Amino acid sequence: MTFKFEITHKASQTRARLGTLTTPHGAIDTPNFIFCGTKAAVKALSPAQMRAAGSDIILSNTYHLMLSPGADLIAEMGGLHKFMGWDGPMFTDSGGFQIFSLGHGAVADEIKGRGQMHRPKTILKITEAGAEFRSYIDGKKFFLSPEGSVDIQRKLGADLIVQFDECTPFHVDKEYTARSMEMSMRWGDRSLAEHARHNDGTQAMYGIVQGGVYEDLRKTSCDWTRDRPFFATAVGGSLGATKEQMYDVVAMTMAMVHPERPVHLLGIGSFIDIFTNVRQGIDTFDCVSPTRMARHGWAMVKGAEKERMNIRNATYRNDQDPIDETCGCHACKSHSRGYIHHLFKVSELLGMQLLSIHNVFTMNRLMRDVRSSIANDTLDAMQKEWVA
Amino acid sequence: MTFKFEITHKASQTRARLGTLTTPHGAIDTPNFIFCGTKAAVKALSPAQMRAAGSDIILSNTYHLMLSPGADLIAEMGGLHKFMGWDGPMFTDSGGFQIFSLGHGAVADEIKGRGQMHRPKTILKITEAGAEFRSYIDGKKFFLSPEGSVDIQRKLGADLIVQFDECTPFHVDKEYTARSMEMSMRWGDRSLAEHARHNDGTQAMYGIVQGGVYEDLRKTSCDWTRDRPFFATAVGGSLGATKEQMYDVVAMTMAMVHPERPVHLLGIGSFIDIFTNVRQGIDTFDCVSPTRMARHGWAMVKGAEKERMNIRNATYRNDQDPIDETCGCHACKSHSRGYIHHLFKVSELLGMQLLSIHNVFTMNRLMRDVRSSIANDTLDAMQKEWVA
Repeated sequence: MTFKFEITHKASQTRARLGTLTTPHGAIDTPNFIFCGTKAAVKALSPAQMRAAGSDIILSNTYHLMLSPGADLIAEMGGLHKFMGWDGPMFTDSGGFQIFSLGHGAVADEIKGRGQMHRPKTILKITEAGAEFRSYIDGKKFFLSPEGSVDIQRKLGADLIVQFDECTPFHVDKEYTARSMEMSMRWGDRSLAEHARHNDGTQAMYGIVQGGVYEDLRKTSCDWTRDRPFFATAVGGSLGATKEQMYDVVAMTMAMVHPERPVHLLGIGSFIDIFTNVRQGIDTFDCVSPTRMARHGWAMVKGAEKERMNIRNATYRNDQDPIDETCGCHACKSHSRGYIHHLFKVSELLGMQLLSIHNVFTMNRLMRDVRSSIANDTLDAMQKEWVA
Repeated sequence: MTFKFEITHKASQTRARLGTLTTPHGAIDTPNFIFCGTKAAVKALSPAQMRAAGSDIILSNTYHLMLSPGADLIAEMGGLHKFMGWDGPMFTDSGGFQIFSLGHGAVADEIKGRGQMHRPKTILKITEAGAEFRSYIDGKKFFLSPEGSVDIQRKLGADLIVQFDECTPFHVDKEYTARSMEMSMRWGDRSLAEHARHNDGTQAMYGIVQGGVYEDLRKTSCDWTRDRPFFATAVGGSLGATKEQMYDVVAMTMAMVHPERPVHLLGIGSFIDIFTNVRQGIDTFDCVSPTRMARHGWAMVKGAEKERMNIRNATYRNDQDPIDETCGCHACKSHSRGYIHHLFKVSELLGMQLLSIHNVFTMNRLMRDVRSSIANDTLDAMQKEWVA
């Protein structure tokens, strides 16, 4: 079996656990962080730089790739791994998140891939069959069904793939959430069936738990995913309007998911959120924030106020220290805050590259620290080092 | 003596020669190419990436650095080498080229550092004392004299520095060219005097040969530089309106310059121009073209038509070959034309980074080939390999 998830250690007081997630492109230790290479590239960094910064696994977005360069082209080029030059484990989402979040107009905190927060609605029609939407690039009409999403993900060829689901806006009521969840379950069954039809052992599928902030719906959804032959579970849907609500929704969900499958929490990436959610048993995270913050001049810094430092701040103008003297990344070993401040001030691309390297390295360092402190039962103490 | 130029081989049929130019930050073999790190950074690349691509020496622009972050700040940060993290030889120009070329409005082919070809004139007054101009950043008034330029270059701390001169528009007549040249000589003497007042052996100065396309003026200027205690010679001023005229002006000038000093040709960087001008004895070149072309999607390719390939061309969409299969750069070893085409199409910064690596590597490879073929007396054959 090319896919495997072994839980190698369980914490005594919490659901925190260590594991090894094995894919045809290698194994990763969990908890781990999956970096977003939205358009088959992590922004500003090469696969070699991602490796050098300690990264284990990269995600790419089905939505963006189906529009450009297209799944057939990537298949012709030998699949996503070969196309982008990353030979480690890869993950693709189903395309649903972007279709619906872009479609409803500025629903998501982060509209991935373009950085624009206000845009016309592009979702045209959601039916049992699937979703009709307009391309964010040229307005051309597209239709994506569960079968289509799985077909595209098969052509892309990532190791870990995700069922197609509807991503609801966070303000919808319980009735809409329930109806949407039920359709996502039917879409999940169709996704599994399509996956089974062509399954050659090179890909494994995540089922998505929906149900918004409602415990009974989350229970229905968790039961449904447990009963299906998914390899793994992703916690999706609305997690509420505040961090506290998100922690509560994850906690209630994690009490009910399949206990032996790897669990991915979609779109979460701050230090505090990672510490809090690994205690609930989350195994992997993804978020655009490390590279997105970097491009806007924010360095993620262990123990710093709000977990970060704005390198554009005039304070750093003549600062000869590295961003973080405890960090071993290329940027911190080779360059000063003053120099990186200058690069941002005069709009040199190198500034984005150096901060991206630093933030990626920092996330990987965080995950190593999280794993070692779970092993040593010192997660609380480690959290105090990372979160001021 | 920390500075030295040794001519190690002379070609039999031409003025082509091999040499070693020694500075306090190491020696470079000549002929060689100096990469432009205009604002204390080579665009899109780190010093570590420049090294990995085989680069020996970097230039930075006094004009841009005096405006931002300022020479005093760079001095406070330990000088340009430490500030930008490049420990090899460095070169700064005098600031004159940008002041005058920006000042006259779109005079130069390449208006360095901003990529805009049309802009208001920023030069306010040229007098014997120096030049008054407005900052391209915020319109603030600045004044630069020969003493000021040398003072700023001392604070920046590059190994190789350049006298202050007037850079005339290419359409001026002989009388203006002569008057300007004479003022540049007086400015050169003042530059030398200022340099001598503080000379601690860490910097060496280039004198600039002016005189436009006029042989008698070039002779006057060459005689003047030969008679002054410059370490090296730079060929500046108008080189004419066509490549042929440029080759003629360089040829006539090279017959008259100090034969034992290193000679730099300002702003020239195509393959054919390098082959043609090393035959006249040029030892070093600089040009923004390798990294500028890269950012616009042009790969410099040995033996290709027009010396280059437009990676944005739809032909490359599904091309699995590297840009240049004979190239050993990181981009060619790791990525296909199809992937880099995709990166440019979806505006991923990584595309610029990869093409920049390729073009820098290619220029360094070209210069190695130029040197080995001068040594073997096979420069003509080598030119045929590089220039289609």
